[in-house]
Amino acid sequence: MLFIIGLGLADERDITVKGLDAVRSSERVYLEAYTSVLMVDKQRLEEFYGKEVVVAHRETVESESDEILKDADKVNVSFLVVGDPYGATTHTDLVLRARERGIPVQTIHNASIMNAVGATGLQLYNFGQTVSIVFFTDNWRPDSFYERIAENAGLGLHTLCLLDIKVREQTIENLMRGRQVFEPPRYMSVSLAAQQLLEVEAGRKGGACAEDTLAVGVARVGSGDQLIRAGTLKQMADYDFGKPLHSLVLVGHRLHQLEAELLRENAIDLESMNAVLKRDYRLDH
Amino acid sequence: MLFIIGLGLADERDITVKGLDAVRSSERVYLEAYTSVLMVDKQRLEEFYGKEVVVAHRETVESESDEILKDADKVNVSFLVVGDPYGATTHTDLVLRARERGIPVQTIHNASIMNAVGATGLQLYNFGQTVSIVFFTDNWRPDSFYERIAENAGLGLHTLCLLDIKVREQTIENLMRGRQVFEPPRYMSVSLAAQQLLEVEAGRKGGACAEDTLAVGVARVGSGDQLIRAGTLKQMADYDFGKPLHSLVLVGHRLHQLEAELLRENAIDLESMNAVLKRDYRLDH
Repeated sequence: MLFIIGLGLADERDITVKGLDAVRSSERVYLEAYTSVLMVDKQRLEEFYGKEVVVAHRETVESESDEILKDADKVNVSFLVVGDPYGATTHTDLVLRARERGIPVQTIHNASIMNAVGATGLQLYNFGQTVSIVFFTDNWRPDSFYERIAENAGLGLHTLCLLDIKVREQTIENLMRGRQVFEPPRYMSVSLAAQQLLEVEAGRKGGACAEDTLAVGVARVGSGDQLIRAGTLKQMADYDFGKPLHSLVLVGHRLHQLEAELLRENAIDLESMNAVLKRDYRLDH
Repeated sequence: MLFIIGLGLADERDITVKGLDAVRSSERVYLEAYTSVLMVDKQRLEEFYGKEVVVAHRETVESESDEILKDADKVNVSFLVVGDPYGATTHTDLVLRARERGIPVQTIHNASIMNAVGATGLQLYNFGQTVSIVFFTDNWRPDSFYERIAENAGLGLHTLCLLDIKVREQTIENLMRGRQVFEPPRYMSVSLAAQQLLEVEAGRKGGACAEDTLAVGVARVGSGDQLIRAGTLKQMADYDFGKPLHSLVLVGHRLHQLEAELLRENAIDLESMNAVLKRDYRLDH
């Protein structure tokens, strides 16, 4: 059996009882480590499981699926994914390859940021499509997320922005010389995401993510150290949310009174928030 | 401490290790039982936890929050919610009351249908807002969900439809006589939901959920007995998905090739699905 197991959001104890039993029954355990990360390291997981954990990098999963699936028709193999297995990436490729070989697959679900973002007080019903924001570089500033945000905003819906993480980056020099030397991991902050959004808005001028658009920044959701703060996008651009992981929500105009109340509870600056709510948001329901 | 703990989707072993520790440390344990249900009964939970579990009905949570929160500043109290605590309802009222009394609150997240619906093969990124469909009665047929579905369809996005459950319903006679006698619980099936959607479409004629709109029905997600089938809405209206709980997804026109492939794998009838995909869906990306 191939188990695809969601680990949840924060630490080794966010796995489900069902998931832990599956890990402990497995001959080999892989950890997918390129779409998200837990707030604890691999050693913590290994001690908790009593098992060796092999980190599967993107190139491993894509090119070494033979290795991962080896004998999985006879023994149990666990493939661990931070959040929910279907949270942001579907790992469809691995599942399809397993099916081709007649290997049974069982998915064990868990929380992902896509439902845990309800901790902001914003109703999950009122979210439109989710977007991803990647690190801009000097010559690569992809902003196709802007249309999606504008579509959501046009309907008055909230937008969850998932923020880029870069693990195992190589400098161009190391890449060209074929050296397996990697840069330290980078995690996009709420503040940088807000700056990038404001830059795109300055070019596009559609008003979908302007300086006074209300937003909620979240950091380390599901951990004891969780932080949730609401304010304008301009305030977000200057606010330090501390250690990763961060996500950002843009607040749609179809905001309910109860949602607004919970925004106020987390306001960076209540006065400016109330002014924007009064001027720009129709709180007539 | 008040713990608000997500139980996940299927059975007693879908709780997280962190959640189980919290339950076992609690003096009192309540189970919220009006927005969703697990596929196992209360006794299974009690045996697994080694604790008595008190079922909290809607009226308990709303009127007896004093009882639930009693001494929660000194002892631990667990409030269990099927799925994720923020999956569909926020339990905001209980949290706000706890805060007023200075009771610390910790949320322990879990999977909800809102991320587990990724098991259909449809990308969570491509979902618009979620809607709820309630049981129609002879004289109450609320269809405001139609506008939401039409908004999503207009953008080519998928719509997750959460289906009504009715627990502790009373007949009008029992209600008038003040008798606490309740009807057996009812859970809306994919088939009934599809019939109601087609009825609303017949009146509104916007094309948002027509007979040939593709849909995916899911039943008992996260259990060993999970069923996922894709087809037209008309086919859904005649398909028996078996025991609860069911949910329904309407497939948007911005469908990707890979999503379409996975739909085909679950097709009720591949030929008619291919015909609809070719005629109505732009699979150019």
